[in-house]
Amino acid sequence: MQASPDVSPAKWHLAHTTWFFEQFILKNHAENYEEFSKDSNALYNSYYETQGKIFPKSQRGLISRPTVAETFAYRDYVEQQVEAFLQTTPLTEEIADLMEVGLQHEQQHQELLITDTKYNFSINPTNPAIIPDHLSETTAAPREWLTFEEGLTEIGTNNIHFSFDNERPVHKYWIHPFSIATVPVTNREYMNFIEDGGYKEAGYWLSEGWSIVKQEQWEAPLYWEKHEGEWYAYSLQGLKKVNPEEPVTHISYYEADAFSRWAGFRLPTEQEWEHAFSGYSTEGHFVEAETYHPAPVDKPEHVYGNVWEWTRSPYAPYPNNRPLEGALGEYNAKFMSNQMVLRGGSCATPQSHIRSTYRNFFPPEKRWQFSGIRLAKDE
Amino acid sequence: MQASPDVSPAKWHLAHTTWFFEQFILKNHAENYEEFSKDSNALYNSYYETQGKIFPKSQRGLISRPTVAETFAYRDYVEQQVEAFLQTTPLTEEIADLMEVGLQHEQQHQELLITDTKYNFSINPTNPAIIPDHLSETTAAPREWLTFEEGLTEIGTNNIHFSFDNERPVHKYWIHPFSIATVPVTNREYMNFIEDGGYKEAGYWLSEGWSIVKQEQWEAPLYWEKHEGEWYAYSLQGLKKVNPEEPVTHISYYEADAFSRWAGFRLPTEQEWEHAFSGYSTEGHFVEAETYHPAPVDKPEHVYGNVWEWTRSPYAPYPNNRPLEGALGEYNAKFMSNQMVLRGGSCATPQSHIRSTYRNFFPPEKRWQFSGIRLAKDE
Amino acid sequence: MQASPDVSPAKWHLAHTTWFFEQFILKNHAENYEEFSKDSNALYNSYYETQGKIFPKSQRGLISRPTVAETFAYRDYVEQQVEAFLQTTPLTEEIADLMEVGLQHEQQHQELLITDTKYNFSINPTNPAIIPDHLSETTAAPREWLTFEEGLTEIGTNNIHFSFDNERPVHKYWIHPFSIATVPVTNREYMNFIEDGGYKEAGYWLSEGWSIVKQEQWEAPLYWEKHEGEWYAYSLQGLKKVNPEEPVTHISYYEADAFSRWAGFRLPTEQEWEHAFSGYSTEGHFVEAETYHPAPVDKPEHVYGNVWEWTRSPYAPYPNNRPLEGALGEYNAKFMSNQMVLRGGSCATPQSHIRSTYRNFFPPEKRWQFSGIRLAKDE
Amino acid sequence: MQASPDVSPAKWHLAHTTWFFEQFILKNHAENYEEFSKDSNALYNSYYETQGKIFPKSQRGLISRPTVAETFAYRDYVEQQVEAFLQTTPLTEEIADLMEVGLQHEQQHQELLITDTKYNFSINPTNPAIIPDHLSETTAAPREWLTFEEGLTEIGTNNIHFSFDNERPVHKYWIHPFSIATVPVTNREYMNFIEDGGYKEAGYWLSEGWSIVKQEQWEAPLYWEKHEGEWYAYSLQGLKKVNPEEPVTHISYYEADAFSRWAGFRLPTEQEWEHAFSGYSTEGHFVEAETYHPAPVDKPEHVYGNVWEWTRSPYAPYPNNRPLEGALGEYNAKFMSNQMVLRGGSCATPQSHIRSTYRNFFPPEKRWQFSGIRLAKDE
Repeated sequence: MQASPDVSPAKWHLAHTTWFFEQFILKNHAENYEEFSKDSNALYNSYYETQGKIFPKSQRGLISRPTVAETFAYRDYVEQQVEAFLQTTPLTEEIADLMEVGLQHEQQHQELLITDTKYNFSINPTNPAIIPDHLSETTAAPREWLTFEEGLTEIGTNNIHFSFDNERPVHKYWIHPFSIATVPVTNREYMNFIEDGGYKEAGYWLSEGWSIVKQEQWEAPLYWEKHEGEWYAYSLQGLKKVNPEEPVTHISYYEADAFSRWAGFRLPTEQEWEHAFSGYSTEGHFVEAETYHPAPVDKPEHVYGNVWEWTRSPYAPYPNNRPLEGALGEYNAKFMSNQMVLRGGSCATPQSHIRSTYRNFFPPEKRWQFSGIRLAKDE
Repeated sequence: MQASPDVSPAKWHLAHTTWFFEQFILKNHAENYEEFSKDSNALYNSYYETQGKIFPKSQRGLISRPTVAETFAYRDYVEQQVEAFLQTTPLTEEIADLMEVGLQHEQQHQELLITDTKYNFSINPTNPAIIPDHLSETTAAPREWLTFEEGLTEIGTNNIHFSFDNERPVHKYWIHPFSIATVPVTNREYMNFIEDGGYKEAGYWLSEGWSIVKQEQWEAPLYWEKHEGEWYAYSLQGLKKVNPEEPVTHISYYEADAFSRWAGFRLPTEQEWEHAFSGYSTEGHFVEAETYHPAPVDKPEHVYGNVWEWTRSPYAPYPNNRPLEGALGEYNAKFMSNQMVLRGGSCATPQSHIRSTYRNFFPPEKRWQFSGIRLAKDE
Repeated sequence: MQASPDVSPAKWHLAHTTWFFEQFILKNHAENYEEFSKDSNALYNSYYETQGKIFPKSQRGLISRPTVAETFAYRDYVEQQVEAFLQTTPLTEEIADLMEVGLQHEQQHQELLITDTKYNFSINPTNPAIIPDHLSETTAAPREWLTFEEGLTEIGTNNIHFSFDNERPVHKYWIHPFSIATVPVTNREYMNFIEDGGYKEAGYWLSEGWSIVKQEQWEAPLYWEKHEGEWYAYSLQGLKKVNPEEPVTHISYYEADAFSRWAGFRLPTEQEWEHAFSGYSTEGHFVEAETYHPAPVDKPEHVYGNVWEWTRSPYAPYPNNRPLEGALGEYNAKFMSNQMVLRGGSCATPQSHIRSTYRNFFPPEKRWQFSGIRLAKDE
Repeated sequence: MQASPDVSPAKWHLAHTTWFFEQFILKNHAENYEEFSKDSNALYNSYYETQGKIFPKSQRGLISRPTVAETFAYRDYVEQQVEAFLQTTPLTEEIADLMEVGLQHEQQHQELLITDTKYNFSINPTNPAIIPDHLSETTAAPREWLTFEEGLTEIGTNNIHFSFDNERPVHKYWIHPFSIATVPVTNREYMNFIEDGGYKEAGYWLSEGWSIVKQEQWEAPLYWEKHEGEWYAYSLQGLKKVNPEEPVTHISYYEADAFSRWAGFRLPTEQEWEHAFSGYSTEGHFVEAETYHPAPVDKPEHVYGNVWEWTRSPYAPYPNNRPLEGALGEYNAKFMSNQMVLRGGSCATPQSHIRSTYRNFFPPEKRWQFSGIRLAKDE
């Protein structure tokens, strides 16, 4: 099932991540490798123009064959083949790198499996509850400000262990004086914005955002519904009353930006975010908590996890960045238009997947990610 | 899975026909009936505006819950309840009529289950073969003409046993002299039309048809593909070479009309069709043959089955027709705009479902039905 | 200016009707004729596929060159050339026929010039008044019924003087007993329909009509606006309060059909209309009145003029109809899908243009014509 | 006339720039000012949400009243009123600033008047020539590179004389070592890109760019057509053979970016552009040349004028930027999403309008501006 062109069916995620190992490792490097099926490349290539014809993303939900059982058989087959290959072949740096990319890629799709499944179920008028309730009784810590002086800093990474090409290389960057909030914006604050007419006042909004608000009749975050004066939100736990202590999520960049203007602040740049938090431990509320939903942030040191935080930085290449050669060069660089950078990971991200230099990116109008707001201001 | 807004998922057909019995018989007439689920009406009401909110047809493929297993449980439950109801309740004429409508309705959806499943699988680049090959070696009988004189005839029915509201009442109709072909147009003839530039010459086409030809880049019937100079067509038997002896099918009204003009003839009116064939036995190639595909017409007396035949008659009410009262009044009458009448049944129709007065109807641009061509001419 | 793909700019109407004479008479029949400009065919061919490439209808408003002055020069030139041609060439039947078609064609565009200009001005938020007020103080005559018995009648014409190809030939038709109203439905009656919730109750509507009502949020005829509880309508006289005595106009077939069902009646077939009124004189409120707006029908014998009356007859060929050969064969026949027949002429029609057999046709969802309602019922 | 939602009719530009003075100066500051017409605000407010309802941009071509003559009368009236106001009122800093903004705003619309008129005429299949030929016989200077070292530079301005809010304030920025080309890319070079299959090879393109290339079937810059193996381009001089010595223009960001990748280089950032050329005199080929078309760049010191040069910088606020208060706060800041910065001015820009800190911005897919390419590379 695929309820929007933005999301993919669960079966497709399972098959596509498997295809990644088959296509980039087994077919190129394993001797006498026999493909599981000659159809895999036609069905599971996501966007690698160099790897043959691409099945339209918006139609992934229409592929009822191979079946779910055949897809699991495909996964088993490739997994065994990869294991056999690794046991019989010396681990060159190239193979190690490809394995690392394959695993990181699978982590990304694990996260999408959650966000996409949530979206897919949300269409159902019966609001299916797929996991048990996880009612948090924690209280959100109050917002305080961390202040930084101007000066030359370093941004990005040079790939010790693993990084994506878009995080590289380390480069100098001049920071201007700023403050950044210790905690993300809560549902309580966001409900104040709604009640204060935030969605009715053009002055808070970027021009394109305001067009979408009117066209799509946005009045609240994605998944929110009002019943008898109370806000409810759909999650994998079903339709539940909105908890005012949780970080607000499922908002577009336009909503994050409008909220920040209403609140008298602004969003941070991605460099400010990285400069402020590169020394923090990547602890927090991740997919391992198995709630697939943000939790109130009671510990301000938990800046990672919970919600991806929109920055005001459009997604663009770093100075001296070199895209990878070959098919993997298509991994990140070709999406560098009309997208905004998000930082920090979410409640659907595997904890081991995140790091201070990690750059996520989505178009400014998208809302199905666990996206939220951290405020900043000039000093 | 639902590959176009025209078709429905198999699971939906199973649930919707069950809902029909639950909604119109059990809930209205069975004492103390307990619904299987409070969600059924929200999910399975197709278009009965009087029966509550209608889930958008184009999103039926997005309802992953209830599951297939739950849907079969729903069918079992309602079937048992209907049986119990019939055994314990005197069979009034009203109940008998509703049961008859429910069964005829289920037959209609059995047919749609085939046409829709075919369409849904056709999207798959691997061309899945779902049933075994049925290669017919029969030869099509040559076209001859049956000629009729002018005069007053009677069209329609007055409902002995069963009829739909759109077939009623019997009424007088003045027939003009005409001839009608003994057999439908074959793939061979249609391939001649294609090769003669039929799809490239505006003069053969209705204006709206020509717009679609250009916009959709139609060059052949739905499901046809050319490989190395040969036409192939997808069916539930997979992708097979087109058999020139079979009746052409999966064409729009516009194509049927254009073909008839190219051939120097015209399509019959629905009254001509009925006048010519009301005395014929409803024998032929129906769903019971289990090929789900037309077969060459070697016996001209088999005018029923094989392919639904487009008439040149727009779908309109008969004189003195009275729509049913209540919800069933929505069954047929409200679709009387922008549709054309088809006659005769197809290889996906249950044989017991067809009769000489039966009026099927589809928009002139649709092609996923087993629709074909029978020629006529003025005399 | 062209405010919708349905309408054309005034300049285009002027040029296109001129092109018609140039293309079909001068270029084919006048010796040594020199075209006014080599661009005319590219710009002014409306839909004659046989006459070369067609400039997209929806972009006619984008042709700022030739200018208005050049267009009038084109008209003067062709007019002089046609006059010279007629004075120097014997008037064969072919030429006489083409001249007649050219003149009838120009009358059709005179009518469109009014309906299109009205639409084009209606977009303007300042509601321009282009002609002086014509406030009628007449009162509408009450509705009575004319009743007819069943029997064989004759419909259509065989072209004495002039007729379009779609009116031919005379043919027998079996009429069923019916009554038809003496006067069209008034704004007062239509306002009752609106206030009674006519636009909110699916049961009155054809399925496609109901979809449009919801999608376009129709709540009243085209051009109507409610201000402080009163209905106003835009006409070439500006924005005026709706006069309850006038015939309702600017409604779609779907609205006419829904109104008739609400009122407990139905629309007439085109054969009923013709059968009832073929003996009436073609007198009434036509374009010559120069109000370009319907007037209250105080004389029931005035069945022609005022508003085109939607019939329940889809636009289809008459028995034994033969389309013209050559380019003029495209004149009417190719539009015979998804359109409904209207009868009787309107306040924008030249009186000499109308006759009892005249068949106008528009898609059922269109509203920019002066279209209205005459009720009928079974007997 | 308005041939696309991106452009406006000439009449609208004339009226809107007049409205700007009326709305922001006369109505707010001139005592007893009487509006020329109560309709102006409804018709000519472009996008100032705070200034009342906005007439849809895409429908500006549908406003046939007021007429052209009335629009000129409006201009005359407001001009006289402004002059009278300035002669009778002390020139406060606020008024002087508003007058300056009004004049700069009018210069921007003078430029748009040219680009929009060109687009509007380009739709016409007769390729109207509006101005005399200006065939340049100059030869383009060869490309050389200017190289810069890393270090802290200053970007932006603090508004001595005049600047737009988006250029402010002056701020520090760390530059990385780079080289920038002395001249823009020529049509000759761009034709090489086309012939080398640049539009057929996904690898050169951003993902969104590649989607548009396929969807819109782009094969060359806007306005280019191939006739018998030769490229022609429409300009206000009519359809002319492409001059290989001229800078390429009417390309999207995606095309500029793809070309730069094909050529083995990249586009500059806007900071690199400003850092390299802030010391240059703003001389070159501007609107005052009255060719409304780029000319070959024979003098490398002419970096301004000719074509706006796409940078790889998304349009974003400068550090510590403060949007203006009130309506003028809507002038620039609200467009800061999904747009790219262009630098340097074009053949349609008034020379006095450009400066080294000037930031123009358009969405990356737009092509109707005189937009071109200057290459850069890392060092």
